[in-house]
Amino acid sequence: MDEFFKPSNECSMWTGETGKLIDKARSEGITLAWDRLAKQTPQCNFCEMGLSCAKCVMGPCRIIPGLDREKGVCGADADLTVARNFGRFVAGGSAAHSDHGRDLVEVLYEIGTGSTTAYSVRDEAKLKRLAEEFGLDTKGDIKAIAKSVAERLFADYSTHGPGLAFLGRVPKARLDLWNKLSITPRGIDREPVEMLHRTHMGVDCDPVSLCLHAARTSLSDGWGGSMAGTELSDVIFGTPAPGKTRVNLGVLKKDMVNILVHGHSPVVSEMILAASADPSILDQAKKVGAVGINVAGLCCTGNELLMRRGIPLAGNHMMTELTIVTGVVETIVADYQCIMPSLVNISQCYHTKFVTTSDKAHFPGADTYHFTPHNARELAGQVVLKAVEAFTKRDPAKINIPVEPVEIMSGFSNEAILGALGGTPNPLIEAIKAGVVRGAVGVVGCNNPKLRQDEQHVTLTKELIKKDILVLVTGCATSAMGKAGLLVPEGASMAGQKLAGLCQQLGIPPVLHVGSCVDNSRILQLCAVLANAIGVDISALPVAASAPEWYSEKAAAIGLYAVASGITTHLGLPPMILGSQAVTKLAVSGLNDVVGAAFIVEPDPIKAGELIDNHIGQKRQALGLSF
Amino acid sequence: MDEFFKPSNECSMWTGETGKLIDKARSEGITLAWDRLAKQTPQCNFCEMGLSCAKCVMGPCRIIPGLDREKGVCGADADLTVARNFGRFVAGGSAAHSDHGRDLVEVLYEIGTGSTTAYSVRDEAKLKRLAEEFGLDTKGDIKAIAKSVAERLFADYSTHGPGLAFLGRVPKARLDLWNKLSITPRGIDREPVEMLHRTHMGVDCDPVSLCLHAARTSLSDGWGGSMAGTELSDVIFGTPAPGKTRVNLGVLKKDMVNILVHGHSPVVSEMILAASADPSILDQAKKVGAVGINVAGLCCTGNELLMRRGIPLAGNHMMTELTIVTGVVETIVADYQCIMPSLVNISQCYHTKFVTTSDKAHFPGADTYHFTPHNARELAGQVVLKAVEAFTKRDPAKINIPVEPVEIMSGFSNEAILGALGGTPNPLIEAIKAGVVRGAVGVVGCNNPKLRQDEQHVTLTKELIKKDILVLVTGCATSAMGKAGLLVPEGASMAGQKLAGLCQQLGIPPVLHVGSCVDNSRILQLCAVLANAIGVDISALPVAASAPEWYSEKAAAIGLYAVASGITTHLGLPPMILGSQAVTKLAVSGLNDVVGAAFIVEPDPIKAGELIDNHIGQKRQALGLSF
Repeated sequence: MDEFFKPSNECSMWTGETGKLIDKARSEGITLAWDRLAKQTPQCNFCEMGLSCAKCVMGPCRIIPGLDREKGVCGADADLTVARNFGRFVAGGSAAHSDHGRDLVEVLYEIGTGSTTAYSVRDEAKLKRLAEEFGLDTKGDIKAIAKSVAERLFADYSTHGPGLAFLGRVPKARLDLWNKLSITPRGIDREPVEMLHRTHMGVDCDPVSLCLHAARTSLSDGWGGSMAGTELSDVIFGTPAPGKTRVNLGVLKKDMVNILVHGHSPVVSEMILAASADPSILDQAKKVGAVGINVAGLCCTGNELLMRRGIPLAGNHMMTELTIVTGVVETIVADYQCIMPSLVNISQCYHTKFVTTSDKAHFPGADTYHFTPHNARELAGQVVLKAVEAFTKRDPAKINIPVEPVEIMSGFSNEAILGALGGTPNPLIEAIKAGVVRGAVGVVGCNNPKLRQDEQHVTLTKELIKKDILVLVTGCATSAMGKAGLLVPEGASMAGQKLAGLCQQLGIPPVLHVGSCVDNSRILQLCAVLANAIGVDISALPVAASAPEWYSEKAAAIGLYAVASGITTHLGLPPMILGSQAVTKLAVSGLNDVVGAAFIVEPDPIKAGELIDNHIGQKRQALGLSF
Repeated sequence: MDEFFKPSNECSMWTGETGKLIDKARSEGITLAWDRLAKQTPQCNFCEMGLSCAKCVMGPCRIIPGLDREKGVCGADADLTVARNFGRFVAGGSAAHSDHGRDLVEVLYEIGTGSTTAYSVRDEAKLKRLAEEFGLDTKGDIKAIAKSVAERLFADYSTHGPGLAFLGRVPKARLDLWNKLSITPRGIDREPVEMLHRTHMGVDCDPVSLCLHAARTSLSDGWGGSMAGTELSDVIFGTPAPGKTRVNLGVLKKDMVNILVHGHSPVVSEMILAASADPSILDQAKKVGAVGINVAGLCCTGNELLMRRGIPLAGNHMMTELTIVTGVVETIVADYQCIMPSLVNISQCYHTKFVTTSDKAHFPGADTYHFTPHNARELAGQVVLKAVEAFTKRDPAKINIPVEPVEIMSGFSNEAILGALGGTPNPLIEAIKAGVVRGAVGVVGCNNPKLRQDEQHVTLTKELIKKDILVLVTGCATSAMGKAGLLVPEGASMAGQKLAGLCQQLGIPPVLHVGSCVDNSRILQLCAVLANAIGVDISALPVAASAPEWYSEKAAAIGLYAVASGITTHLGLPPMILGSQAVTKLAVSGLNDVVGAAFIVEPDPIKAGELIDNHIGQKRQALGLSF
């Protein structure tokens, strides 16, 4: 297991734009995540193995299985301690996604009640489809439908609701299995709260029971909060359609006011985008010598605007600090999640303003704006104007945009994919049967400074497409793929012959960008559509998921909801469970007997590609197809 | 600060029944919590100071303020790391209480819909008072009222409800303050979920903002989940009234079938109690040679049955393992919370059956029963019959009940207290004004093996009553007080002259037992009643709270909701916050400027008594009363 824990932060791993800006940061005395990781190494083995517990003040305890410290003060052994920690880890991720989804439900409700004019329903057809799906009246005016859809989804967050609205999408065999296992999620807020309860001292003391409730909690995210987030973002801001844009630090413009939107929600960032097109503010920008205002994205807020508006993506998780080091970022507008607290300090080394917009996410030293659906448009204008002012304060000696941007294609919502297939999944199913598309894998998730940035994403993906496996990408994996040329139709040259042929025929890349992290719910939905069309459970499909460079609790929740939905999932690093043989075995094999899918933990992306390919081959065979 | 961390588990600290049974356990090779603490000592300083973080796999990180490791990989410093950990700690406790409260709302709902006959409304008048308080129709039949009250409280668990039903009890000045601070709880489940979200990497990075949300989360417990738990338990099982019973291991009977109910909820334990009075099962008990069936309580399930049924209390947290060592316990029936996982192993060294009853709390090796409101009466019968069978398997050589029981008085619900005062708080207010009752302190909470069991509770309480301060007690502090003779009217001889006179006049003890841990909500309510009657905020009252031997996340939530409600609170051990000067300062002084109350951390109960007395004196002076 030691191989997982080696810090791989030698300088040799930094190349390209990353390497150049790390050198610049070094020369300016700026500390980055890689430096902090080096100082934190070696990391605590107890914590890393999941064997520390600080959930009561009889402790803290550190468990050493088989030795003198084999139990905590309460009597918890290694298996229980690991399971408790893992349960809370997953609950943290689920809560984050679901609380983000809540914000979208609230905006839709405000639209429905007419109490905001900043937001409106851009995709009325999708709203009506949702209303129909939920069994609601679709005949009233659009505001009334918005209100009733929002109320139906509020009910999903309650403790005594009618059952999650999106469970109607789940194949019957899967739902029956969840019911049998008592892991069908009952309420989006209820499951993480019950997980907190169960992991309190002296509540659930069975590692298996805790892991099953972790699965239930993750399902309340995937088929609940995240799906609400995705679907309502489409309703409010428009359902994505294929289009072209650009990626990497080269999307920053020396002669423009650069505003980076960072975090995960489109709610505020869409208003920033709108304000940046305001003629009076643009005039102001010209007055201070800029040719215009350039909004670019970071992380998943970036993915949201990329999918729907073609806004370029400046970078992913490990690039967030380095974007400031270019010296041309006037403002970072942050909402929530994955925003390193270090960004405030690095901003202070430049002329960059660090702006927070959510009452859930304050940062000491930041410029704080209290955005609500009522004041969003007005505050967005103020934020953009401040960015224009900051443009005049750039230090020309500090400017360095080290690369030219790379073109990418994006916008592959399920509506776009199924629309391109003529409205049914059958052409895709036929392609799978014929082996033209051998299978499909969602390559998703974060960066982690323990791994060479983007390399796992790209190496694994190239292995997969070489084997005619279609890849769907979300989140921070997106800019990795884009920079590697995998998100343009020309990327098909890197794919196997059959997949390449199909891509050329359809004019699509071999890797389809389907959105942000919450948009992994699109992948769930697509799997359900395929499974229902074939008449099988999701676990029978020749598909898999992978988070090769994951770092966050949210990624663990995504991985677990994928597995609990029947999708075998590869992780490039293990979660902090290795201190328990029981939990580890359950994760990597036992779950196959429970939910028909399990985790594959493999740090080598080439080997991971082989394991995933083998898994897909077996699923194909079981369906009576060629291996 | 080192004084907090000295393990004080030398043999010399064990006396009385505890010492005798520890010796017995030792001679039988049984490991107890004190032994496990000794093996876990020294404990991890990073965890103990709140400076460890394992919330993402860029970490785990250990922060050393001011040194090379002053920041985690994400950039979080000591203040942020401590605040994140503390936030989750409080969320864990709030979630536990509130998920317990949810169970009571569900039982009331089942009563209302007529889908259970095992449970009914025992206090119809209280149910009607609640319905009236909530603005609901009180004229229908009792089931209809039960359903509508349950639905009103379900709404408190939702994300988009009308606001917490019990907020109407909060003094206006306090509610205004919460609204100003944006810490009025919006939903019982929402606040802990948002806390999980905020403490995810890159969300809320401001220690003060996190601490304020911790307060909001705790308020959703105190004025939400816990209050629902208390009020509906009264409605369903009867509102407590003063009565006498007994406490300590002597309540176990050599010639009877002994069943211990352990955990926190009355829902299952009330059914066990009912089944133990079943004539056919009693016949069976006689057939196996027992003179009857003796149900006794542990922990807060014990407190629930003690308050309402006069069921004797065998012991508190640190006695739970030792009860089994008496060799006369046939069955422990566990629901949830504070049930040491070690109990299963210790049970296996005896003839004792360890029975679990909640789907939220499984224990490997236990006899598992899936209780629901529908099957509760039937399963309870099965559990009690199995206990009768187990009676025949006792090992006479292992039997040792080391003490005789001590008499106590219990049942001081607010209804009982105010009823005894003629239905208004005015006589109590007059007594406070006159200095007959100098003030009131809730001494609550757990045991902790780091402290000499019960000694802090008793020493502090004796100090307080000596100074004419009335003490209210809940939870595990109860049996400490009982064993020390403080829960009988004769205990007044230990009180100051004025308080003693009042106790003698009213025939009450100087320490009033008001219930279980969730029943700390009774203390909140009583404070609100007093504050409203005087026309001041709660923070103006000459009152305080103390958890001298606390150990659990729930106790931290209670402490914080007390402080956030304006009640200064003493802790005998610090929470794991000492790694942050900012958070520590906020806790012990800064909060005074924010919510008009703060924490006092003092391990010496004599000094703590002086500090609390001084606090009460200052509050008296500010009200224009004698110091």
